[in-house]
Amino acid sequence: MKKKVLTLLKEADGYLSGQDICEKLEVSRTAIWKVMKQLREEGYQIESASNRGYRLLEVPDRLTEAELGSRLENSLFGKNIIYKEEIDSTNIEIKRQAEAGALEGTLAVAEFQRQGKGRRGRAWSSPKGSGIWMSFLLRPQLRPENASSLTLVAALAVSRAIEKVAGLSAQIKWPNDLVIGGKKICGILTEMSSEMDFIHYAVVGIGINANIKEFPEELPYATSLFIEGGREYNRAELAAVVLKEFESCYQEFLAEESLERLLSDYNSRLVNRGSQVQVIKGDESLSGIARGVNAQGGLLVETESGIETILSGEVSVRGVYGYV
Amino acid sequence: MKKKVLTLLKEADGYLSGQDICEKLEVSRTAIWKVMKQLREEGYQIESASNRGYRLLEVPDRLTEAELGSRLENSLFGKNIIYKEEIDSTNIEIKRQAEAGALEGTLAVAEFQRQGKGRRGRAWSSPKGSGIWMSFLLRPQLRPENASSLTLVAALAVSRAIEKVAGLSAQIKWPNDLVIGGKKICGILTEMSSEMDFIHYAVVGIGINANIKEFPEELPYATSLFIEGGREYNRAELAAVVLKEFESCYQEFLAEESLERLLSDYNSRLVNRGSQVQVIKGDESLSGIARGVNAQGGLLVETESGIETILSGEVSVRGVYGYV
Repeated sequence: MKKKVLTLLKEADGYLSGQDICEKLEVSRTAIWKVMKQLREEGYQIESASNRGYRLLEVPDRLTEAELGSRLENSLFGKNIIYKEEIDSTNIEIKRQAEAGALEGTLAVAEFQRQGKGRRGRAWSSPKGSGIWMSFLLRPQLRPENASSLTLVAALAVSRAIEKVAGLSAQIKWPNDLVIGGKKICGILTEMSSEMDFIHYAVVGIGINANIKEFPEELPYATSLFIEGGREYNRAELAAVVLKEFESCYQEFLAEESLERLLSDYNSRLVNRGSQVQVIKGDESLSGIARGVNAQGGLLVETESGIETILSGEVSVRGVYGYV
Repeated sequence: MKKKVLTLLKEADGYLSGQDICEKLEVSRTAIWKVMKQLREEGYQIESASNRGYRLLEVPDRLTEAELGSRLENSLFGKNIIYKEEIDSTNIEIKRQAEAGALEGTLAVAEFQRQGKGRRGRAWSSPKGSGIWMSFLLRPQLRPENASSLTLVAALAVSRAIEKVAGLSAQIKWPNDLVIGGKKICGILTEMSSEMDFIHYAVVGIGINANIKEFPEELPYATSLFIEGGREYNRAELAAVVLKEFESCYQEFLAEESLERLLSDYNSRLVNRGSQVQVIKGDESLSGIARGVNAQGGLLVETESGIETILSGEVSVRGVYGYV
C-alpha cells in the first residue's frame, strides 16, 4: 500500500488528487492520509494543497521497503523486501529466511550491519546510512560446482549499474571485488546450502561503498562512489539498478548454465586483464598474464608453460600495483 | 559423569565397589547412588549387593549419550553427543548446532525423527527405537567441490562396520546408499554450508535400518539387518563402530584430499562393479559397465565410446536388477 502510493506520487506530473489515489487503490481517504503521514515520518517531503492534492517534493536517501519496492515493480526482487535500520548481517538474515522457506528473490537491506561479513568470516565494515548493504535469496537449479559463477554474475551487474547510475568505471577484481583506481568499491559474498548434487539455496551479499565520506586509516585500499565521483548518489536508485542488472544477467547465465553470453562484457571490465598477476594458493604461487575468465568462471592465466585455468575462488590474485 | 560410571561398570570384571567408583571419579557415595538410579530408569539392569558393590547385568538397546559416549572415549565423536527420544531431523539439529558454533565431531542421535530427510527433500522413514538415525558435524578444510567425497567415505565406513558387527556384506550403491541383496539397508545424506572456496561446515546424516522387523508395502526395496541376519543387533555398538570407522577413513581422505588410499576397499564393496548400469541425467541416459570410482569419487562407466566419468551425485544409476 505504502509502496503503491509512493509509486503513484513518483509517476505523477505535478499534483495528485486524494480522490484519484482512493479510486486507483480502492482505499479510503483516511487510509491515504495515514500513509502520507508515515511517508513524511520517513523523510519524504510531500506537499498537500487543498483542492489540488499531494505533490512529492523530495525523496530521502533511504533504502526502505517502499522506496526500493516502488523501483522494483515486476522485478524478481520487488516481491519480498526486508528493510532494517540495523541488523546482524543481511546474509545471515537471508539464510534465516531461506531456512523458513522464503521464495527466490527475497531481499534484505539494512542501513547498518553489526556483523557485516566478508569472505571466510572476515569482517566487512558497513557504516550506517551511507552504503548499500544488501543480500538476496536464489534457488537456482544448478549443480553446486557451478554456483560460484553467481559471484561473477553479481560483479558484472554491479559494474554495469555503477556505470549507468554514477557514470564511473568500476572494474572487476576476479572473483568477488570491484575496484576504482585499484581501491575497493564493492565486495560480494556468495554463500550456499547444498547437497552433493543439489543446491538448497544460495545467498548473494553485495556491499557497495556508496556515499561514505572517508575511511579509517586501517582501510587504505577502500574508496567510495562519493570519493571517486565527488558527489552523493541516490542509493535506492543504485540498488534497484544493481538488482535489475543482476536479474537480467542471471537469466542469461541460467539459460546455458554458463557465463558464455556474458563473457565479452565481463572480460572487458576485468581489472587485471592483460596484466601480470601473481596467483597465490596456499604456499605456492604462479605468475603470468591474466587473459580473462572462461565460461565456467575460471581465470585464464598465461604462464611460460601455457595457459593455466584458476578455479574460481581457489586462490587470491595480486596485481602488480600491489593492491591485495 | 553418567558416561564415566557406565564405562567403569562395563570395564569391571564382576562387581565394582561403590568406594572404588568414588575414588576413581572423585565424587560422593550419594552422587554415585543418583547415577545408578538414573541408569536403572534408562533400562540398565544393575545389581547391587552389600559389601560387594555394583554389577552390570544388562544393557538396554538404546543410543543414549552415556551409552554411546562410553563406547566413544577418545574419539572425535565422543565429545559432544546430543541424544533425543524424538527430533525433527538429526541433520537439521546438527545444522542448528553448526550455526551456533559447535565443534567438529558434534553428534546428534534420535530414537525417532518426525521429518527424517532423504536427498532433495524426500522423506526418510525412521521408525522409533529400531533404527540408527544419526548425524554429525564436520568442518573440513576442503574445497567445496571435494566435499561430495564425504558421502563415499561414510558409505565405506558403514559397510565396514556392518561387516564387523553383524557379519553381513552390505554393498555400496554409489553414491549414497548401501544395499543387501539389492535392497536398501542404509542411506546417507551429506549437506554443506559453503562459500565459493571455503566450507563453513558439512553435515553427514546416516540412517541404518538396524532392528526394523518389517517394512510397509510402500517400501518394497528396503530391508534391515534384523531381516537379513535373523536377529537383533546392539545398535549402540554398531553406531560406535560406524563412527570409529568413519573417523579412520576421514583421516585417510583428508591426508591426500582424495580417496586414493580408500579406493581398493571401496571398489571391492561397490554393488554395480563389473555389471551393466544405466546412468540417468535429466532426460538423457547412458549405458555401460561400471568399473569403479576414481580418487575424486566419480563413477567410471565403460561405454562403447570409451570410459565416461560420472560426477558424484550428478545422476541416478540403475542396475540391471531394477532396483532404483
